[in-house]
Amino acid sequence: MFTLKVDEEIKLYLFQPHHAIELFQLVEKNREHLRSWLPWVDDMNSPSQFEAVIPLWLRQFAENNGITTGILYKGELVGSIAIQQIDWHNKSTSIGYYLARKAEGHGVMTRSVSALINYAFFQLGLNRVEIRCGEYNKKSRAIPERLRFVKEGKIRDGEELYGRFHDIIIYGILARDWKGMYFR
Amino acid sequence: MFTLKVDEEIKLYLFQPHHAIELFQLVEKNREHLRSWLPWVDDMNSPSQFEAVIPLWLRQFAENNGITTGILYKGELVGSIAIQQIDWHNKSTSIGYYLARKAEGHGVMTRSVSALINYAFFQLGLNRVEIRCGEYNKKSRAIPERLRFVKEGKIRDGEELYGRFHDIIIYGILARDWKGMYFR
Amino acid sequence: MFTLKVDEEIKLYLFQPHHAIELFQLVEKNREHLRSWLPWVDDMNSPSQFEAVIPLWLRQFAENNGITTGILYKGELVGSIAIQQIDWHNKSTSIGYYLARKAEGHGVMTRSVSALINYAFFQLGLNRVEIRCGEYNKKSRAIPERLRFVKEGKIRDGEELYGRFHDIIIYGILARDWKGMYFR
Amino acid sequence: MFTLKVDEEIKLYLFQPHHAIELFQLVEKNREHLRSWLPWVDDMNSPSQFEAVIPLWLRQFAENNGITTGILYKGELVGSIAIQQIDWHNKSTSIGYYLARKAEGHGVMTRSVSALINYAFFQLGLNRVEIRCGEYNKKSRAIPERLRFVKEGKIRDGEELYGRFHDIIIYGILARDWKGMYFR
Amino acid sequence: MFTLKVDEEIKLYLFQPHHAIELFQLVEKNREHLRSWLPWVDDMNSPSQFEAVIPLWLRQFAENNGITTGILYKGELVGSIAIQQIDWHNKSTSIGYYLARKAEGHGVMTRSVSALINYAFFQLGLNRVEIRCGEYNKKSRAIPERLRFVKEGKIRDGEELYGRFHDIIIYGILARDWKGMYFR
Amino acid sequence: MFTLKVDEEIKLYLFQPHHAIELFQLVEKNREHLRSWLPWVDDMNSPSQFEAVIPLWLRQFAENNGITTGILYKGELVGSIAIQQIDWHNKSTSIGYYLARKAEGHGVMTRSVSALINYAFFQLGLNRVEIRCGEYNKKSRAIPERLRFVKEGKIRDGEELYGRFHDIIIYGILARDWKGMYFR
Repeated sequence: MFTLKVDEEIKLYLFQPHHAIELFQLVEKNREHLRSWLPWVDDMNSPSQFEAVIPLWLRQFAENNGITTGILYKGELVGSIAIQQIDWHNKSTSIGYYLARKAEGHGVMTRSVSALINYAFFQLGLNRVEIRCGEYNKKSRAIPERLRFVKEGKIRDGEELYGRFHDIIIYGILARDWKGMYFR
Repeated sequence: MFTLKVDEEIKLYLFQPHHAIELFQLVEKNREHLRSWLPWVDDMNSPSQFEAVIPLWLRQFAENNGITTGILYKGELVGSIAIQQIDWHNKSTSIGYYLARKAEGHGVMTRSVSALINYAFFQLGLNRVEIRCGEYNKKSRAIPERLRFVKEGKIRDGEELYGRFHDIIIYGILARDWKGMYFR
Repeated sequence: MFTLKVDEEIKLYLFQPHHAIELFQLVEKNREHLRSWLPWVDDMNSPSQFEAVIPLWLRQFAENNGITTGILYKGELVGSIAIQQIDWHNKSTSIGYYLARKAEGHGVMTRSVSALINYAFFQLGLNRVEIRCGEYNKKSRAIPERLRFVKEGKIRDGEELYGRFHDIIIYGILARDWKGMYFR
Repeated sequence: MFTLKVDEEIKLYLFQPHHAIELFQLVEKNREHLRSWLPWVDDMNSPSQFEAVIPLWLRQFAENNGITTGILYKGELVGSIAIQQIDWHNKSTSIGYYLARKAEGHGVMTRSVSALINYAFFQLGLNRVEIRCGEYNKKSRAIPERLRFVKEGKIRDGEELYGRFHDIIIYGILARDWKGMYFR
Repeated sequence: MFTLKVDEEIKLYLFQPHHAIELFQLVEKNREHLRSWLPWVDDMNSPSQFEAVIPLWLRQFAENNGITTGILYKGELVGSIAIQQIDWHNKSTSIGYYLARKAEGHGVMTRSVSALINYAFFQLGLNRVEIRCGEYNKKSRAIPERLRFVKEGKIRDGEELYGRFHDIIIYGILARDWKGMYFR
Repeated sequence: MFTLKVDEEIKLYLFQPHHAIELFQLVEKNREHLRSWLPWVDDMNSPSQFEAVIPLWLRQFAENNGITTGILYKGELVGSIAIQQIDWHNKSTSIGYYLARKAEGHGVMTRSVSALINYAFFQLGLNRVEIRCGEYNKKSRAIPERLRFVKEGKIRDGEELYGRFHDIIIYGILARDWKGMYFR
C-alpha cells in the first residue's frame, strides 16, 4: 500500500485493484448517506465495478492528471479524497472527497484536505485549489470554510443529481493565501 | 463550407484544414489586439500550425464534445466562436470567442453567441451555458451582460496569461432563463 | 445544424448524433425501395445503430477523408449524399447517394451532386470525381449521365448485394471537364 | 524466410525487416526503370526507409488485408508482387507488381501473378482480382492480357506520377473465369 | 500458405485465419494428450477461438516479436512450433512446441526445432535460444537433450497448470555452441 | 510522495515526474559504480530523460504489471527497487534493484527487498519471486542469498552489457518458503 502520511492517525493511500472489495464495502455501508451528494453511488453495485474503475484512476495518476486515494483513519478505510483533473497551464486543480458517517466529527477530512493542499502547492507546484460543494451540503462546505478558502461564486444548476439540478458553491484558495496563513 | 446561419449578415462555419490560411491571416492582422486576452496567440506563427490544430477541433466535434467555428460577417471571416468541452452528465458547456477589431460595434458577437446558445439549448438539449471573461476584459464581458447572463462568481487567479495570473468572471445562463426571456 | 447550401430549396447538412432518429425514419419509410441497391439497409434496424455510425462519419470528416450529409429539401430530410474516401495522392474521390421515393422527380439529387462536385473541385482542390452505380440501377445512373460524366468502364461482379454479385458501372468527371462545361 | 512456392524456379517470400537491404538494392539498381510507373521510387533512398515500411506490410498481412512479397527467381530477389487491400464484403482485391530489368523475358511475372490469383481464389476464397496498369505501360499490361483478364475500363487521370496525371486501365478476372480456363 | 522449408518431409507454415479449422481439429483430436502440459487447451473449444487468436500471432510476427507456425509433415498438420517473445536487447528468445500423438517417433519435432534455431541464429541474428519444459514432461525434454542444449536450471513452481504449480527445466543453447556442433 | 513503509529508517516511494531531478542526481553521482551491472546507465544523461521514463513506470503500475520505487534511507534517496513485469497466470514476478555506494553496508537493500517480497506475496497474492544477478556481481547476489532464496540456475549469456554477454544467476523464492521461514 502506497501512502501519503497526513499525521499519526491518518494516511492517504493510492487505490490499487486489490483494494476494490474494501472500497465497495465502504460505499455499501454508507450508501444512503453518500448518495445525497454523489451522483455515481447508485451505479456502483459490486466490487468488480471498482476493480474496473481503479485502473482508470491509476492511469490518471500516471498521466500526472489527478490522484484518487483512500483515507485510512487509525488503520481503517473511512473515506476517499482526490485531486481531480489538473489544469497545468493555469496551475489549478480541485479537490473532492467523501467520508463514512461513523468517522465524522474527528477532523479527519479537514486534516486530509490540508495534506492534499500541501501536496498540490509544494510537491506539484500548483497555484490554485478549488473545492466545489452542493449549496445545501453543509458538512462538505464546512471543510473549505474551516480552512479559510474564499467563497468565490455560485454556479447555478452546476450539477445534476438523480434527475434534479442543484447549485454549486465554488471555494478557492491560492498558494500565496495558504502560505501566508500557515507558514508565517 | 458547412455553416450555421445566424441571420442574413452572419454565418458560423466549421473550420476545415483548407481554412488554415484565412484563419492565420485573421490572427496575424489582430495579433496585438488578441494577445491581450488569449494565451495562445504568441504561439501561433504560421498557417501550418492552424492546419495541425483544426483536425483536433473537428475530432472534438466528431466526439460530440464541442464545436469551433469561424464567424463570417458579410462574407468575410471576422472572428471565431466555439462551444468548448461539453459536460454531458451535467448538461453544461461554455462558450468562448474573439473578434477582429474592425468588426467591432455591429453586434456581430452578441448575435453569434445568441445563435450558439440556441444551438446548445435546442439542438444539443443542454441546460446551462457559461461564459468566462477576464475581469478587466470589458468588451468580452459586455456580451454576456447584454444577453442577461447572471454574474455568478469570480475565480481568483483563474487564468495565466503570459506569466501573470488574473481573475476570471463566470457568467451563466440556464435554458429556462433563456426561454423565458426570448420566447414569451 | 451545419449546412452546405445547394440552392434556395436544397441544403446538405452534416449528420450529428442528435439526427439519428430522423435518419432512421427516412430509411424505415423507404426500406423496400432502398434495399434494392444498398447493401447495409437490412442491417440497420434501430435509431441507436445510426447513433453509433454517425460519429464514425464525423471522424472521417475530421480526418479530411470524406463527408456524409443529409439532403434537406424544402426543410425536410429526403436523402443522403456523401463524399466517400478521398485518395489525396491521386486527388480523386467518389460520390454516393440515395433518395426517398417521394422526393424523386424534382432534380434534388442532380443538384445535390453538382454541389458536392463543386465542393470537391473548388474547396478541396481534387482533380477527379467518380460515381459507381449498379448496372441496372437506372435512376442512379441517370444522375452522372445528366451531369455529363464519362462512362469509363464496367467492373464485373463489383458488388455483392444480399448474396448475389452484380456489375458496377464507373462514371468519372475531371476538374477540367467540369470547369469547361459549366464555367465558360 | 516464409515462402509461397510458385514452381521449381520461383518463390514468393514475405518481406521481414531483415530483408530491407536486399529490397533497397533491388530498387537502387532498377531506379530509372522503376520510376517510370511507380510513384514512390524517388522517395525511397535508404534501407532504413524499407525497414520502416516492411512492418506496415506485415501488419496489413496480420489484419488479413493484403500481402507484400519478394519474388525469388533461381534464388535471387528480382521483383515484388503484392495482394493489395482486400474488400472482404465484395470478395475482391487487386494485384500490383514490379520486376528488375534483367529478369524480364522469362515469364517470371506471369507465373507469379498466376500463383497469387490461385492464392486469392482458393486460399482466401475471393471472387474477383483486379490489375490496374498505366495506359502506356506495355510490359505491365501484357501480364493480365496474357492471363486472359477482361479489360473493363479506363480510369481517366487515375494516377498522379511525378506531377502529371495519366490514365489507368482496369483489368478484372473472376473466380469462375479462372477456374473455367485453367481447371477444365 | 507461407512456409519455411525444414526438409523434404517437413514444412513450417505461418498460421492465417483460414487455417483456424484445421488447427482446431488438431487440438480436438489430441486434447487429452495435449492438456497434460499446455495450460490453454481446455479454453479452446471452437474454431472461432483460433480465428480470434491467429491475428494476434500474426501481429506479433509483424512486430518482429515471435512466430507461430504449423508443422506440416508429409502434407498434413501434425503440430505447432513457435518462436516466443524475442528479447532484442539481449538477443535471446525461447521456442515452444507440441505434436500430435500419431506423428511421434519420426524425429519431426527435433528437425523442426533445428530449423527454427537456424532461423533464429542465422536469419534473426540472435545469440541464445531457450527451451522450457515441465520437469516430468519426458517427451518434451528429450528434444533439447537430443540437440545438446545445456540444462541450465530448474524454476520451482514456474508454471501453473490447471490449478497446480509444477517445476520448469530451462535448457539453453548459444549461437557459438550451435555453430560449433553442426558447422565444423 | 506515496510511500511503502519498510521500517523506521526506510521507505519506498513511487517515482513521479517531479522526482526526475533527484533520481538523475543519484545516477549521476554513482555512474561509475552503477554502469558495471546496469545496461541503461550510459544512455541516461539528463533529468528530462527520467521525466520521460517515469510516466511509463507509472503506467505499468496502473496496469498492475510492476512497480518502480525510490529507496528513502533516513529521508534521502539512496537507490531504487522495482517489481518487474508480473506473470499473473503463473503468479510470478522478479525484483530488481541498485544502491548508491555510500548507502552500502547498512542492510538497506536486504530490508527493502524483504518489504517488496511481503508486498508481492501478501498484497498481490503472488506465489513466486525471482531475482536475477550477474554471475560476478557479488553485492547483488548477496541479497537473495542472505534472504535464503534458492539458486535455481545459470542462464548462459543471459544479458548483454555494453557489448559483452555475461551469465545470469536465477534465484527464486516461493510464498510457502517465505512464510515458513519468517512467520513461524
